[in-house]
Amino acid sequence: MKRGLLLFAHGARDPRWAQPFEAVVQRIHAHAPGTPVALAYLEFMAPPLEEAGAALVAQGCDTVEVVPLFLGAGGHVRKDLPALLDRLRAAHAGVTWRLRPAIGEVEAVIEAMALAALQPAP
Amino acid sequence: MKRGLLLFAHGARDPRWAQPFEAVVQRIHAHAPGTPVALAYLEFMAPPLEEAGAALVAQGCDTVEVVPLFLGAGGHVRKDLPALLDRLRAAHAGVTWRLRPAIGEVEAVIEAMALAALQPAP
Repeated sequence: MKRGLLLFAHGARDPRWAQPFEAVVQRIHAHAPGTPVALAYLEFMAPPLEEAGAALVAQGCDTVEVVPLFLGAGGHVRKDLPALLDRLRAAHAGVTWRLRPAIGEVEAVIEAMALAALQPAP
Repeated sequence: MKRGLLLFAHGARDPRWAQPFEAVVQRIHAHAPGTPVALAYLEFMAPPLEEAGAALVAQGCDTVEVVPLFLGAGGHVRKDLPALLDRLRAAHAGVTWRLRPAIGEVEAVIEAMALAALQPAP
């Protein structure tokens, strides 16, 4: 099994918007240099999910964990993303695509946000 | 000085979207029971920033730290929020309103997201 991580963010018109998402990718590379990671966007930015997912498959991944980099799970995470995943599943039948909870629903991320709100960086 | 925290999130049509933000408020209450905290939304959800800010002032806060609960800083954080803050400053002249970076730009939050993406909760 070769596992890849497909991070899915909203996208925005301002290119500076993407900096935290690119920083998450860098941190993942630092912690797990051998794990293929791709970042994809719903709109305004490239690549789209289909293209980033295909790139992971081209790197040999047969299991891809799809991680929504959204704080809350609304229509984008509950409707748009599953529809896009269905297209990836249809295009790459031998690959397992696992949809994970929105990153903002993870306890450790909630705790980090609470502490950051209380204790601003110097 | 009485400090309050004003958390500002986007809002969404799906009420389940707000759960992580409400969880952040609960964690802040747990860590700092005496700190007044209010959660406000840009759209779709209530209260708006002006109302939540006024509530903190009514609780006696003379310094309010405004924390954008956004992962990336695009137009909502760079344009919409400063405009809303100007209205709060005009309405409450004796109060200091400090705008903090987007929560997704905080190193510890980026690290928590990277670890959560790599190591899913059991």
